[in-house]
Amino acid sequence: MCSKFVEENYDVVVVGAGHAGCEAALACARLGLETIVFTVSVDSIALMPCNPNIGGSSKGHLVREIDALGGEMGKNIDKTFIQSKMLNKSKGPAVHSLRAQADKAEYSMEMRKTLQNTDHLTIRQGEVSEIVTDENNNIVGAKTTSGALYHCKAIVLCTGTYLRARCLTGEMITHTGPNGLLAANHLTQSLIDHGIEMRRFKTGTPARVDKRSLDFSKMEEQFGDDRVVPFSFTTDPESVQIDQVSCWLTYTNSKTHEIIRNNLDRSPIYAGIIEGTGPRYCPSIEDKVVKFAEKERHQIFIEPEGLNTNEMYVGGMSSSMPEDVQYEMYRTLPGLENVKIVRDAYAIEYDCINANQLYASLEFKKIHGLFSGGQFNGSSGYEEAACQGLIAGINAAMKILGKKPLILDRSEAYIGVLIDDLVTKKNREPYRMMTSRAEYRLLLRQDNADLRLTEKGYEVGLISKERYDYVCKKKELIDKEIERVSHVNIGARADVQEILKKYNSIELSNGTTLEELIRRPELDYDKLAPIDPDRPKLSDDTREQINILIKYAGYISRQIKQVSHFKKLEKKLLPTDFDYNTISGLRIEAQQKLNEFQPLSIGQASRISGVTPADISVLLVFLEQLKYSNPDLFSRLNPDNTSVEQ
Amino acid sequence: MCSKFVEENYDVVVVGAGHAGCEAALACARLGLETIVFTVSVDSIALMPCNPNIGGSSKGHLVREIDALGGEMGKNIDKTFIQSKMLNKSKGPAVHSLRAQADKAEYSMEMRKTLQNTDHLTIRQGEVSEIVTDENNNIVGAKTTSGALYHCKAIVLCTGTYLRARCLTGEMITHTGPNGLLAANHLTQSLIDHGIEMRRFKTGTPARVDKRSLDFSKMEEQFGDDRVVPFSFTTDPESVQIDQVSCWLTYTNSKTHEIIRNNLDRSPIYAGIIEGTGPRYCPSIEDKVVKFAEKERHQIFIEPEGLNTNEMYVGGMSSSMPEDVQYEMYRTLPGLENVKIVRDAYAIEYDCINANQLYASLEFKKIHGLFSGGQFNGSSGYEEAACQGLIAGINAAMKILGKKPLILDRSEAYIGVLIDDLVTKKNREPYRMMTSRAEYRLLLRQDNADLRLTEKGYEVGLISKERYDYVCKKKELIDKEIERVSHVNIGARADVQEILKKYNSIELSNGTTLEELIRRPELDYDKLAPIDPDRPKLSDDTREQINILIKYAGYISRQIKQVSHFKKLEKKLLPTDFDYNTISGLRIEAQQKLNEFQPLSIGQASRISGVTPADISVLLVFLEQLKYSNPDLFSRLNPDNTSVEQ
Repeated sequence: MCSKFVEENYDVVVVGAGHAGCEAALACARLGLETIVFTVSVDSIALMPCNPNIGGSSKGHLVREIDALGGEMGKNIDKTFIQSKMLNKSKGPAVHSLRAQADKAEYSMEMRKTLQNTDHLTIRQGEVSEIVTDENNNIVGAKTTSGALYHCKAIVLCTGTYLRARCLTGEMITHTGPNGLLAANHLTQSLIDHGIEMRRFKTGTPARVDKRSLDFSKMEEQFGDDRVVPFSFTTDPESVQIDQVSCWLTYTNSKTHEIIRNNLDRSPIYAGIIEGTGPRYCPSIEDKVVKFAEKERHQIFIEPEGLNTNEMYVGGMSSSMPEDVQYEMYRTLPGLENVKIVRDAYAIEYDCINANQLYASLEFKKIHGLFSGGQFNGSSGYEEAACQGLIAGINAAMKILGKKPLILDRSEAYIGVLIDDLVTKKNREPYRMMTSRAEYRLLLRQDNADLRLTEKGYEVGLISKERYDYVCKKKELIDKEIERVSHVNIGARADVQEILKKYNSIELSNGTTLEELIRRPELDYDKLAPIDPDRPKLSDDTREQINILIKYAGYISRQIKQVSHFKKLEKKLLPTDFDYNTISGLRIEAQQKLNEFQPLSIGQASRISGVTPADISVLLVFLEQLKYSNPDLFSRLNPDNTSVEQ
Repeated sequence: MCSKFVEENYDVVVVGAGHAGCEAALACARLGLETIVFTVSVDSIALMPCNPNIGGSSKGHLVREIDALGGEMGKNIDKTFIQSKMLNKSKGPAVHSLRAQADKAEYSMEMRKTLQNTDHLTIRQGEVSEIVTDENNNIVGAKTTSGALYHCKAIVLCTGTYLRARCLTGEMITHTGPNGLLAANHLTQSLIDHGIEMRRFKTGTPARVDKRSLDFSKMEEQFGDDRVVPFSFTTDPESVQIDQVSCWLTYTNSKTHEIIRNNLDRSPIYAGIIEGTGPRYCPSIEDKVVKFAEKERHQIFIEPEGLNTNEMYVGGMSSSMPEDVQYEMYRTLPGLENVKIVRDAYAIEYDCINANQLYASLEFKKIHGLFSGGQFNGSSGYEEAACQGLIAGINAAMKILGKKPLILDRSEAYIGVLIDDLVTKKNREPYRMMTSRAEYRLLLRQDNADLRLTEKGYEVGLISKERYDYVCKKKELIDKEIERVSHVNIGARADVQEILKKYNSIELSNGTTLEELIRRPELDYDKLAPIDPDRPKLSDDTREQINILIKYAGYISRQIKQVSHFKKLEKKLLPTDFDYNTISGLRIEAQQKLNEFQPLSIGQASRISGVTPADISVLLVFLEQLKYSNPDLFSRLNPDNTSVEQ
C-alpha cells in the first residue's frame, strides 16, 4: 500500500532554479550536502527572462567575486557568450567592468547540464508551497503543492519574480511568471503564517523584435573587444577568443517621447494598476521620459538573444504600455521603422521581502535555517541574484556543518556592500549594484577579485587546494616584483631617454627608480620592459596587478587606512537576540531600530538609518562595560579575549 | 495619437506552433502567402511534450509522406536525431517503419530556426482569442487577447492540447498546457459562438526520471541501426551516420500491477475527475493494467530526452496517479528501484472538435477559410498532427490562390486514410495512425512515399522542379530495370548454381528469367548481381524499389485492382451543400447523416457509419439520373462530361 504523500530526506531544499537558486544549490551540493532544487519548469533553469547579458558596470565585479568564491556564473558565461567587452577602459581600473552578451538558450542549457551532473544535487520540477518549522522556529521541511514533504535542515528561498506574479501589458494582465511561465501562488501565505513580512515589487522588460525587420544601416554597430578577457579566473584566456557578433545602438527622439506622453493614461503604472515598486536604476522608457523630461534622447541597444534565434532585445525600451503604443513608439526609432515585435514588453509584479528581516548571512532572523537570495530579497539583476544565492547557499551549508557563516564586509567585496545595503538600509525599490555604492571601490576591483576572495572560497570548501595555491603564488610574485621594482635604479642612460621620448615623457636629468617611472601617467609597467632586463617572466594578470598597485599606490594606501578604521568597528561585535531597551542611554528610536535589526557589529549598527553617532558612542561604552557587567557575554563576543579597542 | 489596438494584414493566421502549426505555417509561407503564426511561447515552438521520438509504426510512413509533399518534419528529425531504427524489418516491406529518437531541445530549436528564416513568415508570441467572420461566414480576421486584430483570408487552427487545458496528477490539478505552459482559455468560446461544436479529450505522459538514479545493468540495451536511413528523401544518407545513443528496455511486474490496482480510487480517471476521453492505443499504465488484467507484464522503454540532459522518458508508464503512487509503481521496475522523478507523469485534458465538421480539405464546412489540424481535430501524436497541419496549410493556401484543394484518398497515402477516417468516421477518442487502418498498405509503403507523392507536392508548389525531375527519373529507371529483368534469361550455368547454392536456393534444372529468381524468398535483386553482368548502376533506394516491386508483384497487382474499384467510387462526386431529404429512396438515418457530413463522393459516403450499401445504390441511381434531371449540376460534378460509370 502507498503512503498518502511522498516523503523524502535532504539536507537542503532550494526553492527556484534561477541565477540565485543555481548558485545556492551548486554550493550546497559541492559542499557535500544532499540538496534538492525545485523549479516550476526544468526547461527554465538559469533562464534569462530580461537582458541577454552577464556583467556590466559593477555587475562584472560581482561575477568575478562569485567566481573567486567558487560559484558558477563566470564559468557558465565564458562557455556561452557571443560578444564580450571591458567597459570604461578609458577610466581608472576601479570602474573597469566586464560585460558579455550571452546566447540565452545556451546559457540556460549549459547551467542545467552543470546542475544535472553535480553529485548530491537533485533537480525536481514542482512548486514548494509551504515551509515547515518545529516549535523553536527551526526549519524541518518543505512541502510542495502535490502534498509531498521534503524533510531538511535548511531552505534557501530563491523565488525570483515568480511569487504571485502577474504580467502587465497595458490593460492586458496575465497571472504568470516571466515569459508566460507558471507563477508560484502558494508559498507567500506560508511565509506570512511564519511571521515573515512580504512586500510587492515590480520590474519590466522590453519587447523582443525580429532581426529581419530591422534596418541596421541606420544604427551604430557595437563590436566586442579584440582581445576577450574571460570572467572566470579558471578559464583559459585562449578559449574565449571566438568570433563575436555585433550589437547595435540607436536612440529615442522627440517623436518617441511625444507618443509616450500622449499615452501615459494607458500605462498601468500611471493608471495605478501596478501596486509594486519598480527599480529606480533600470526604469521603463515611460519613467525615463517622465522623470528626465529635459533629455532629448535616450540610448537604445539592440542586442541578439542568441546565435540560433532572430529575436533581438531592445535594451532601454522596457515598458508596460499597451501593444499598440509599443508598436508606435518602437517604430519611431531609427532602424526600427518597420519593426515586427515577436514578444511584447511587459511589467511584472511579484512578492518579495524587505531584506532587513535577514542577518548578513542571509538567514532569517526569525526562522533558523531559512535563507534567501536574489529578487526575493528585493534586488534586481542576474548577478545580484547569483551572488546572494551563492552566499545564502554557502551559509545554509555552514550552518548544517556547524561552521561559521561567510560574511563579507564592505571592505572585502561588492557582494559585502550589496548584502550589507540590503539587510541594513531602507530599500524602497529593487536594489541594483553600482560602483558608487562601494566606498572602498579602489580596493574592490574586478581585476583583483581572485586575490581578495579565493582564500575565503578555499576556507569555505568551494575552491580547490590547487587553485588556492596558485593564487597564493600569484600574490607572492606580485609582492616580490613590486619590492624589486622599487629598488631598481634607473640612470639617465641613452636607452632610457629613448623610451621616455617615445611615450612623450619628460627625459631624466638625474637617476630615479623604476617604480617612479611606472607612476608616470603616460607610462606603465609593460612599456618600461625594454629598460628593465632583470624582469621575471610573469602572466598578463600578474603584470596588470603590479602596474595598478604601483600606479595607484597613494590612493590605495589611503583607502586601506580607511578600511582599517572601518574594520575596527566591524569587529566590535554586538550580542544577537538582545533587548536594546536595557541600554538606557540610547534614544527610543535607536532602541527600536536596534531591536528590529539586531545588528551583528557596531559597524553594522552605524549604518542603520535612525541610529545616530551619539547612539554609537553609547553602544561603545556599553560594550566596554560588558567586560565587567557580563564577562560571559563579553568573552563570547571577543573569543580572543582582547579588550575592545576604541 | 495611437489607434486603440494593433491592426495588421496577413493572408493566413496560424494558431499554434506545435508540429501541426509549424507545417501549416511553413507551407503557407513557402507558397508565397504572408503568414503569421501565433504561439503562447516562442520558446516552445515544435515542443515535444511527450515521447522523445519521431516516426514508429505507421507514423514513420506519415513522416515520409510529409517529406514527399514538401513538409519539414523529416528534414528536422534528420538534423536532430540521436538514435534511429527501421522497425519490423523481419516482416514485409509494408510494415517497415522508421523511428528516430530526437534530441528534444535541438529538435525544437532547429524547427524554430527554420521558421525564423522562412520568407513571408512572422512568428508572434500571443494568444488568439477570437476568429472573425463576415456575414457570409468567410474568415476575415483573428483577434488576440491583447485586442489586436489581424486581418486575414484564412485561419489554420493548430491549438494542440492548449485549449482550456488542465493537467492532473492525482488530486493535484493545474490549469496549464503541457509542461506548465500557459493554457489558451479564450478561443473555445469564440468557436462555439461561430457554431462549432467542441468536445473534450485527454491524453497523458509518463514521468521524466534522472538517468543517474537508474541501474542500466538490470535492463536490456536497445541499439540503433548500424546503417541509418534518413527520413527525408533529400537528406544525404552519409550525413546521418552518427554516433548513436542507446535506449533501454525493462518490464512491469505483478508488484507494479498490484500497486496500481490498490490505488485505482486515487486515479483521477477512475475517480471520475477527468471528463475527457483518452487514446485507446496509447493508454496510461493504469488503463493497461485494468483492461489487460491477464497480462503479466508490459514493456517499458527508457529513452534519453536529449544529449544535454539527464532526463529519461519512461515510455509505457503514462499515468495520472498521485505522485506517491507514481514513485511506488516506478520503483518496482527492474533498474528503477532508486529512481528519482524529475517531472511527474500527468494527464492533460483539452478542448478539441469532432473532425466530422470538416471537409477532407480540413476546411470547416460551416466557415469558409477556417482550417484545422492536429490534436484540435481529435488526433494523437506528433506525426498525425504534422501531416494534418501540412494539408490544412496547403489547402488554406490553395483556397486563397484560387486553386483546387489537395485531397489525398485512401489509396494514395496514409495521410489520406488518416484524414478520411477523421472526417467521415465516428472517433470517440484521440485518433492514432496504425498500419492496420490502411486497406492498401502494400501500396502505401514508407519506402515509396516519394514515388507516390512528390508529384502532388510539386503540383502544389512545395517541391522544386529539380526534386520532381529526380523522382520522375527514378521512376523511369525502376520501370526500365523491371522490364529488363523480366527478359534476362538465366541458364543452368555453373556460376548461377554456385550462387543458388550459396543462398540455399534450389539449383536450376532448366533456364528461367532473372525476375523469377528474384521472386524466390531466399533471394533478392542485390544477391543476384554476380550473375547479371549487364545490370545498370543504380542507387540503394532505386534497387530497393525494384526488388520489392518484383517480389511482391502478385500482391501489389491485386491491390492495384482493388484501388481501381475504390477510385471509381471516389470519382463519383456528390454535390456539396445538398439537401439529401430531396432523395426519397434514402432511409431517414442516411438522409440525416448525409446532410450532416455532406460527403464529397460516393466513396466517402460509403464510409459514413449509418449509410448502408442500399443507400449507396440509391445515390448511384440519383447521380445517373442527374444527367437528365439537372444537367448543370451533373456537368459540374463531371467536368470531363463522361457518363457516370457503375
